[in-house]
Amino acid sequence: MPTIAELGENASLARTIARLNLATAALVGPGDDSAVVSAPDARFTVTTDTMVEGHDFKLDWSSAYDLGYKAIASNVADVAAMGAKPTSLVVALICRPTTEIEWLESFADGLRDGCLQFAPEAAVVGGDLAIADTTVIAVTAHGDLEGREPVLRSGARVGDVVAVAGTLGKAAAGLALLQSGNADAISAYDELVNFQRRPQPPIASGVVAAKSGATSMLDLSDGLSRDAARIAKASNVTVSLNRRDLQGFEAMLEEAARAIGANAFDWVLDGGEDHSLLATFAAGSTIPREFKPIGEIIARTNHDVLLDMAPVAEGGWDSVRD
Amino acid sequence: MPTIAELGENASLARTIARLNLATAALVGPGDDSAVVSAPDARFTVTTDTMVEGHDFKLDWSSAYDLGYKAIASNVADVAAMGAKPTSLVVALICRPTTEIEWLESFADGLRDGCLQFAPEAAVVGGDLAIADTTVIAVTAHGDLEGREPVLRSGARVGDVVAVAGTLGKAAAGLALLQSGNADAISAYDELVNFQRRPQPPIASGVVAAKSGATSMLDLSDGLSRDAARIAKASNVTVSLNRRDLQGFEAMLEEAARAIGANAFDWVLDGGEDHSLLATFAAGSTIPREFKPIGEIIARTNHDVLLDMAPVAEGGWDSVRD
Repeated sequence: MPTIAELGENASLARTIARLNLATAALVGPGDDSAVVSAPDARFTVTTDTMVEGHDFKLDWSSAYDLGYKAIASNVADVAAMGAKPTSLVVALICRPTTEIEWLESFADGLRDGCLQFAPEAAVVGGDLAIADTTVIAVTAHGDLEGREPVLRSGARVGDVVAVAGTLGKAAAGLALLQSGNADAISAYDELVNFQRRPQPPIASGVVAAKSGATSMLDLSDGLSRDAARIAKASNVTVSLNRRDLQGFEAMLEEAARAIGANAFDWVLDGGEDHSLLATFAAGSTIPREFKPIGEIIARTNHDVLLDMAPVAEGGWDSVRD
Repeated sequence: MPTIAELGENASLARTIARLNLATAALVGPGDDSAVVSAPDARFTVTTDTMVEGHDFKLDWSSAYDLGYKAIASNVADVAAMGAKPTSLVVALICRPTTEIEWLESFADGLRDGCLQFAPEAAVVGGDLAIADTTVIAVTAHGDLEGREPVLRSGARVGDVVAVAGTLGKAAAGLALLQSGNADAISAYDELVNFQRRPQPPIASGVVAAKSGATSMLDLSDGLSRDAARIAKASNVTVSLNRRDLQGFEAMLEEAARAIGANAFDWVLDGGEDHSLLATFAAGSTIPREFKPIGEIIARTNHDVLLDMAPVAEGGWDSVRD
C-alpha cells in the first residue's frame, strides 16, 4: 500500500475526494482554488475547530474512520447550536508523510459517513493535505439559517428553562475507560468507548430548538459546567442546575465508573466531547421533547453556574492547558 | 509576559480578538458557536489552507506578525482566483503551550493588517486555539462573487492568451536567500526576503480579471510550472509559455541569484508562494493592464506545459513530499 508521500499531493487528494458524498448546496465542489456553495437566505454560518494528536485523540485509540466521523460530528454540532442546517465543510488534514493511502481513504469514508449520518445534504466541498510529525485535523463547517435568526449564547433570560438534548458524560466515560487501560472494562462498556470515538450529537435538534423559540444555545464540547458558564457570562445571568435532573445521565454511567474507580457525576458535570445541545427556553413555552430540562436561569449571582444553589467550579476542558 | 497556558483559552482568545478589525459582512462575529456572514448573491466561495512549521515556515525566519499577515495574503489569493471579493476568514492556530501572549497578539496584528492591506472589508470572524509541539495555522477564507460566475481552472480554450498579475519567483528567491544563511546577501536583498515573509498578491486583480472575461484563473501558490499544469489538466489543453515574456521577472532576480550561486529562472518557473494570479483571456479581448501576457493556450499535446515549445517538467512544490 503506497504512502501519501509516494503518491504525491494530487494523486492522494484524487483518491480521497472520490470517496466523499456530494453536497446539495455545492455549486462548485472540490478541485478548484475555492468551492462555491449556495446560501439561499443570503447569509451563512461558519465555525472552525481542530483536533490535535496527543491532545484530542490518540492514533492507537481511534481509527482513521473514527477521526473522520468525529471531525464531522463535532463540527456540525457547532452549526446546529446556531439553529442552522449544515450545508458544507472544508477539511484540512496534516499527517505523517509515511501515512498509507488506505488510512487517508478510511478517513474520507469517516467524513462521508459522518455527513450521511448527521446532515445528509451536507458534504466536504474542499480541503488541504499537508505533512508534519503530528496529525492535525482542522475543519470548517457552514450552515443555512433558512431565514431564521441565529440562536446565540447571549439570549438567556431570567426565568428561562435550561434543557439539554443528547447525552451527558458518555464521551468522557469512554475516554476514562480508554485511559484506564482496563481491557475488561473497555470491552464491557464498549458502547461508551465507541461514543468517545464516534459521538452522536443531536444535530437535527438544533433546528427544532430554534423553531421552538430557544433563547440561547450552544454545543457541549468542553463539559456542562464550563459551557453553561459561557451562556451565563454571555447572557449576564446565572445558570442554576438541579442535581435531581442530572441523575438519569449519572445512572447510565455508574456501573462503568465503578469498574474503573471513577466518579460518574464528574463525567456528567465536567465531561467534554458529547456535543450535546444546551439550550434555554422561555418559561411556559413548549419545550421540544428531545430536550430534557435540567435547571433554570436566575438573576446574575457571583457565580456563573450553581448546582442545587451551591457554586460549581468551572471544570471541563481548556484547549490550551489540557 | 504570561504564556497562553497560564492565561487559558478564554483569556487568550479575548486578548486576540480585541486586536482584529471588523468584517463588513459579519452579522455575528467571533465568540459564539459559529459566526454569521452575509452572502448577498445567495452564494459564497470557500477555500482552506494550512501553514505547518518546519515545512511552510520557520519560527526563526518569520515573526508572529509575518505569519498572520502571510496567512491572510495566501488565503485571500484563493478567493481572488475565483474572481470573488474576500469577505471573511476563520483561523485556527495551534502553537506551543509556552507561547507568550505577546506572540499571539502580534499574530493577530498580522491577521488584521493583512486584511486591511488586501481586503479591507474582510476580517477574521472566528477561530480556534489549541496546543501542540508543532505550530500549525489553518485558515478558511470566504468570498462574494457579486453576481458573477466563478472563474474556474477548467475554462481555458485554444487560442486564449495566458497572462500573470503580480510577481514570479520573488518569494522563492527570498526563501533561497534565507536558506543560504548568507547574512550579507540576506541584508542586500531584504526586499526579496520580506516578500517571502509577507507576500503581496494582487488581490484586486482577481475581480478585475473576472469582469474582463477571464476564461480560467488560479493563484500561483506552488510555482508557475506546477500551477500552469493544473489549468492544462482541468481544461484539457496545453499551456505554451514564451521564455522571452518571462525575462523581465528573471532580470529582477539575477543579481540576488548570483550572490548565492542560484539560478534566477528556476525561481521564475518553479518558485512557489508568490500567490500571483495566472489567468487566460480570449484572443483579441482587452487584457487588464496588470496582467502581463506570458504565453498562449494550444491544443492538448502530450505535455501540460511547454516553454518555447519544449516540454517543461512539473517542478514546484508538493505539499506531501517537500
